Amino acid sequence: MSTFKPFKLALVQLAVGADKQKNVAHAREKVLEASKAGANVVVLPECFNSPYGTHHFPEYAETIPGTTVSALADMAKQAKVYLIGGSIPERESGSDKLYNTCTIYNPKGEMIGKHRKVHLFDIDVPGKIRFQESETLSAGNTLTHVETEYGKLGIGICYDIRFPEITMIAARKGCIAMIYPAAFNMTTGPMHWELLQRARAVDNQMYVAACSPARDTSAGYVAWGHSTIVDPSGGVIATTEDAEDIVYADIDPSVLDSARKGIPTYTQRRFDVYRDVSADIKE
Amino acid sequence: MSTFKPFKLALVQLAVGADKQKNVAHAREKVLEASKAGANVVVLPECFNSPYGTHHFPEYAETIPGTTVSALADMAKQAKVYLIGGSIPERESGSDKLYNTCTIYNPKGEMIGKHRKVHLFDIDVPGKIRFQESETLSAGNTLTHVETEYGKLGIGICYDIRFPEITMIAARKGCIAMIYPAAFNMTTGPMHWELLQRARAVDNQMYVAACSPARDTSAGYVAWGHSTIVDPSGGVIATTEDAEDIVYADIDPSVLDSARKGIPTYTQRRFDVYRDVSADIKE
Repeated sequence: MSTFKPFKLALVQLAVGADKQKNVAHAREKVLEASKAGANVVVLPECFNSPYGTHHFPEYAETIPGTTVSALADMAKQAKVYLIGGSIPERESGSDKLYNTCTIYNPKGEMIGKHRKVHLFDIDVPGKIRFQESETLSAGNTLTHVETEYGKLGIGICYDIRFPEITMIAARKGCIAMIYPAAFNMTTGPMHWELLQRARAVDNQMYVAACSPARDTSAGYVAWGHSTIVDPSGGVIATTEDAEDIVYADIDPSVLDSARKGIPTYTQRRFDVYRDVSADIKE
Repeated sequence: MSTFKPFKLALVQLAVGADKQKNVAHAREKVLEASKAGANVVVLPECFNSPYGTHHFPEYAETIPGTTVSALADMAKQAKVYLIGGSIPERESGSDKLYNTCTIYNPKGEMIGKHRKVHLFDIDVPGKIRFQESETLSAGNTLTHVETEYGKLGIGICYDIRFPEITMIAARKGCIAMIYPAAFNMTTGPMHWELLQRARAVDNQMYVAACSPARDTSAGYVAWGHSTIVDPSGGVIATTEDAEDIVYADIDPSVLDSARKGIPTYTQRRFDVYRDVSADIKE
């Protein structure tokens, strides 16, 4: 059973534009606002310093460390929060490779984790949406769990949520929440945004949160918004519409414990019949 | 891409009582009714010949072959349908062990599969519901996929649906649908019945169906009803309320193909990062 203390989680559904400096400055304002409201862990959305689009990624990409990452470290320290810094287009030092990358910070401003999107968003729904991240991005090759004083958090980025294994592994390695900076769209949003979060939560009896940018109907890629936090029984406990907003919820490890005690799938899995996908993942 | 032909699926949300002979005779009427309405594959609910309760199982249990199984074979032949015969309490020949077992028949009345519930329903949600199948039942040890002229179907029973691995394996082994005779209750039904079916469908881009008994508020265990069929994008395409009913849907393998083509998670899984849980399952 968990020995971690409750905390307040905030998802910043940020309005993102074309001006990188403005985006980063605006993110800082919102992170500080969330902190003042009592948040202990603050999440920014996918691609929060750049418009989302394959042709934008090379232009906006930065190395890690770099300007945006320095700003994120500084805002975590200033706000005294754990900061899950959304994602940025990352240019790998010494290569031409670009990644969609989330960096994570403790309240001292120290980077405690980095997740490169493992599953690139390459889809083609005829007449609805075609998007191919792989036109300019490379995929990460590792799963990311970060230790905090509130417990271990699993990190994925957007399309990663469609692949159940990474959440199954995170939960079985002790993460109490899976957090996705994400940007679903006007096709996949209404179809699957909430369903996938609730599915990950109920199957793994953990908290799940996904943080979107605000919707900008003039953008090349129109985000769904609806940043959402789901409890370990699969119930939506906090959400919003499409405008800029901050979504808050109290995360309580004892809720996770009682869900797992009532419906104890954790002790009932039949790893004699099928393999535990987390068994050979080292941390 | 699939080469199988479309078919009509029927879920018989059967009213089940204490009289085994009446239950079996009533099942026959409903299977014939579904067949007359054009169904090619007919599903009966979990525990369709017996009230659902651990103290009932020893009393109602039969061997396989046995009286109920003979009747099921006969009704499949008479109705000229594939019949997924819900489940019955099974007494293993030559042992005292009882199982919650689904038998499956082709239109000739030949048994083509048998699934013993792999995950026993042992839950305890304080103040809501406590049920411990393991008080009288033993668990099965194998996964079940049956070949039909319409494609391969995966079979699970009720609580099995909470364990994502069996559906992941079924889909990756070529099943186009996962079918669950099931009986959720008035606590888990509203919380998770539809969510779990939609989760399995969207994650595996296959059809998912769950067939419940009708609700009997005078029974010791009150079933949720709401037998449901979900398409490979996670959308509910057919459902009902709690009274006796037959739920029909047309199952079209080309819908499964287009879902998988639009959002091609099938070719995007990162089995270099995490293991394929289906890889070492032999058929």
